[in-house]
Amino acid sequence: MITFGCPDRTGIVARIAAFLAEAGGWIVEAAYHTDPETGWFFTRQEVRADSLPFDVDELRARFAGVARSLGSDTDWAVADTAERRRVVILVSKEGHCLYDLLGRVASGELDVDVSAVIGNHESLGDITRAHGIPFHHVPFPADGKAEAFARVRELVDSHDPHAIVLARFMQILPAELCEAWAGRALNIHHSFLPSFIGARPYHQAHARGVKLVGATCHYVTADLDAGPIIEQDVIRVGHGDSVTDMVRKGRDIEKFTLAKGLRWHLENRVLVHGNRTVVF
Amino acid sequence: MITFGCPDRTGIVARIAAFLAEAGGWIVEAAYHTDPETGWFFTRQEVRADSLPFDVDELRARFAGVARSLGSDTDWAVADTAERRRVVILVSKEGHCLYDLLGRVASGELDVDVSAVIGNHESLGDITRAHGIPFHHVPFPADGKAEAFARVRELVDSHDPHAIVLARFMQILPAELCEAWAGRALNIHHSFLPSFIGARPYHQAHARGVKLVGATCHYVTADLDAGPIIEQDVIRVGHGDSVTDMVRKGRDIEKFTLAKGLRWHLENRVLVHGNRTVVF
Amino acid sequence: MITFGCPDRTGIVARIAAFLAEAGGWIVEAAYHTDPETGWFFTRQEVRADSLPFDVDELRARFAGVARSLGSDTDWAVADTAERRRVVILVSKEGHCLYDLLGRVASGELDVDVSAVIGNHESLGDITRAHGIPFHHVPFPADGKAEAFARVRELVDSHDPHAIVLARFMQILPAELCEAWAGRALNIHHSFLPSFIGARPYHQAHARGVKLVGATCHYVTADLDAGPIIEQDVIRVGHGDSVTDMVRKGRDIEKFTLAKGLRWHLENRVLVHGNRTVVF
Amino acid sequence: MITFGCPDRTGIVARIAAFLAEAGGWIVEAAYHTDPETGWFFTRQEVRADSLPFDVDELRARFAGVARSLGSDTDWAVADTAERRRVVILVSKEGHCLYDLLGRVASGELDVDVSAVIGNHESLGDITRAHGIPFHHVPFPADGKAEAFARVRELVDSHDPHAIVLARFMQILPAELCEAWAGRALNIHHSFLPSFIGARPYHQAHARGVKLVGATCHYVTADLDAGPIIEQDVIRVGHGDSVTDMVRKGRDIEKFTLAKGLRWHLENRVLVHGNRTVVF
Repeated sequence: MITFGCPDRTGIVARIAAFLAEAGGWIVEAAYHTDPETGWFFTRQEVRADSLPFDVDELRARFAGVARSLGSDTDWAVADTAERRRVVILVSKEGHCLYDLLGRVASGELDVDVSAVIGNHESLGDITRAHGIPFHHVPFPADGKAEAFARVRELVDSHDPHAIVLARFMQILPAELCEAWAGRALNIHHSFLPSFIGARPYHQAHARGVKLVGATCHYVTADLDAGPIIEQDVIRVGHGDSVTDMVRKGRDIEKFTLAKGLRWHLENRVLVHGNRTVVF
Repeated sequence: MITFGCPDRTGIVARIAAFLAEAGGWIVEAAYHTDPETGWFFTRQEVRADSLPFDVDELRARFAGVARSLGSDTDWAVADTAERRRVVILVSKEGHCLYDLLGRVASGELDVDVSAVIGNHESLGDITRAHGIPFHHVPFPADGKAEAFARVRELVDSHDPHAIVLARFMQILPAELCEAWAGRALNIHHSFLPSFIGARPYHQAHARGVKLVGATCHYVTADLDAGPIIEQDVIRVGHGDSVTDMVRKGRDIEKFTLAKGLRWHLENRVLVHGNRTVVF
Repeated sequence: MITFGCPDRTGIVARIAAFLAEAGGWIVEAAYHTDPETGWFFTRQEVRADSLPFDVDELRARFAGVARSLGSDTDWAVADTAERRRVVILVSKEGHCLYDLLGRVASGELDVDVSAVIGNHESLGDITRAHGIPFHHVPFPADGKAEAFARVRELVDSHDPHAIVLARFMQILPAELCEAWAGRALNIHHSFLPSFIGARPYHQAHARGVKLVGATCHYVTADLDAGPIIEQDVIRVGHGDSVTDMVRKGRDIEKFTLAKGLRWHLENRVLVHGNRTVVF
Repeated sequence: MITFGCPDRTGIVARIAAFLAEAGGWIVEAAYHTDPETGWFFTRQEVRADSLPFDVDELRARFAGVARSLGSDTDWAVADTAERRRVVILVSKEGHCLYDLLGRVASGELDVDVSAVIGNHESLGDITRAHGIPFHHVPFPADGKAEAFARVRELVDSHDPHAIVLARFMQILPAELCEAWAGRALNIHHSFLPSFIGARPYHQAHARGVKLVGATCHYVTADLDAGPIIEQDVIRVGHGDSVTDMVRKGRDIEKFTLAKGLRWHLENRVLVHGNRTVVF
């Protein structure tokens, strides 16, 4: 699987396609996009590994030359889709997103390894362990958050995960963690961003009298709830819905949106450019 | 048709229902809502006029006593659904909402009188007149906006309309007009409020990289884009959509949302309480 | 909680409202509907139990007189919302609906007792037991289906459940069970009925080239996939979606639609009339 | 603009991309799809005309060789996007789809020539002419349908249109017209096909008690309502919606779905393969 970006010009597709064709590569799925504003070209090429006469490391080494010739030294990646994806999930007390992800993994729909679940409360430990997944309780005392985050970082990094999922984690990541996990940490925010940034978005939504509530799956950056958006969705609410009803209805959208965003991320479908995403 | 609000307590429904039953009123549609936060009770009762032994003025006079006995002197209305609704539409250059409303009227779907269309440009005059509706061109020179609004007000008020529709009018109503037309002036804003208040919301949406764009139909208040929301909807956009594409896709949602909001308003389905609406 | 239906005429609301007002009943939520085609009137009244000077049995006894006076001997019910709802879930091998329901119960969103899960395979036993719920494995050999259904019936009836949920059970209930559980057995069918009745609906949908796939939650009747529809929803698919992708995307809609239908059923929001439902 | 299909194998993209790159072609938008079931490869390549050193006829001539070398003699097309698209619209009495299309054309959103509107009733003549478009009234007497269709065919064919739109035309095209206009005649059916084929689909939907009604834009074939689907959408309805309400709500979806389908067709985004479509 190749994801690639470079300044747009003629002949890019021909160059990449020729490279793959010469190697006998069978393209399973290919997508292209050019952003006319930034003049940037994006592509994602899913190639059948067994159609190539060399392994993924060799593909990476050879493709580096192609990328360089197209003016892109760093904005590309060759990923091995055969490598099982590792995911670490961070939670607090609210379990709906965790239940949903565990159910998707258990039913085979989301074919990944959940390496660990880390909670700042113990409450979701039992269900995690029932699924055969290690659960780590890391308390977050008001005067010991730095130490707690250091412990979380240590635990997360020990798995070298493809994705760190903040499944309603409710703690704001410090800037150094945002940087260390850039492009791998996904958050689910319980509003249709940029509306209702920060705390208690359903309360904000209720006070404003909106007729739809939403959820946003985005990459975590140091700027709160302002990272590149991967996916969003909404659900209808009405005058009969209290804040509690909005919370309940919104949960389905949170689960759904997080699951979609995570799947796309793990399939290398999400290419970030500035603060926007291309989702192939 | 009765719309009514009062502080909640037991016996309200019984009181109103008994009043109508005694008069032999055949209820076509009835809706009730209690807001637990504010403790306010709302109802809308659609009664067949021919089932009552008196006319709408007498109904109004008699219901006043019921309302008073329930502690509501002013928060109610008796409307004659047989009276044809009059609508004045304010436009600028962008015609999609006007075309849509005129098409709905012409095809009989929206059974109202469009008394007049007023434009600060002449461009939508021909199509309006082709529908047999008077069009008034009121220019808005930079140094003559007050006079222009005075003229608009005069034209609008001469029709005593049930609804004044800002169909992408693009001019901010002065506070005194907001007040004069309170509860009758509807705006369609081309974003999912409260996101992207003010100018060029699609540009703002594109810059933020959102995955859905929306539209909001709301009552106009002196606070820009902050009035009570009647209806909202969204449509999916992606990385392949330029601002122009977002504008185009968003237009369908604007048309659709405005038409729904206007219909509900004219059917007396929208009850405003503070900055929120009950839509029966 | 009162649900009630009778032939429409004037004074019904007044009669019911007066009955409740005299008893001091505080109406939490009230809904009314008249079907102009059948001339049938429907209502649902949620009354605060502690506002009444008598218990639910006495309410039932007293309301019987009201119902009779309005020409409805049997088409009404008084339910005690304080009584915890009991649910039995029937499953086969596919677990997504079960995982979803168990997650909703565990997170407190669906506040019911899952009395038992019954599977014609053992595969979902472990997760059920991890949630502290009894799991019964009842094999369905080709030549022993009648005995299997007898055993299922015995197990189900021993709990006298408010709802029997066929969560992708994949076995067609015999007519006598449909009758015995009429109005209590809910099925989730993986298509937007009446399209694609019967087996392998996603394959049918793929072959027809539809652009949306759906799910339908309906009451089970002896007529396959033809019972009264409680809720339906759809999700977009495209030419890039294989049958497998459609199955995966459709699952989210199945889960979502079943959960909504079940909630409404347990809250006595669904009134059946002929083959159609009123959902208050 | 090139649209192309052939049996899948390695090197197709490289072959086409090399062809375009050698000619200096600047690809504005490219899309690829392989259907694993049929083993068929599809692509659509939008190339900037001014980036090529030859005109569209020469491009067509040269590409024929490429197509042949990839095993596709006929399943491809080179279209000149600079050529303004011609559309003929067939209507009956119901005007909502016509009003919508005319509004989109008038507001510049749909940048096409509506060559003519043909109606089997006169009722939509005035609005058509107000938009400056010729309207032809062709009556369809019960005993003269064949002659009427002959007249319609003559009128339509005189414009050699890119699209013939049946905008709620309500007459079933004879098989020879379906064949003559294959791949160019688009119908909007007022149901979510394959549900409710044929007459009065909203009545059918109401009788079945569905919770969503839909619309389907499809290519017309000799098999009634069974042609390849281009686009579908749905809208929520409830127990409070009469057939009349369903008709009204459904109209918005008809308009919206037809407009999308027509746009995609005119932009050569729709590739038909058997009874399914690829929509790039």
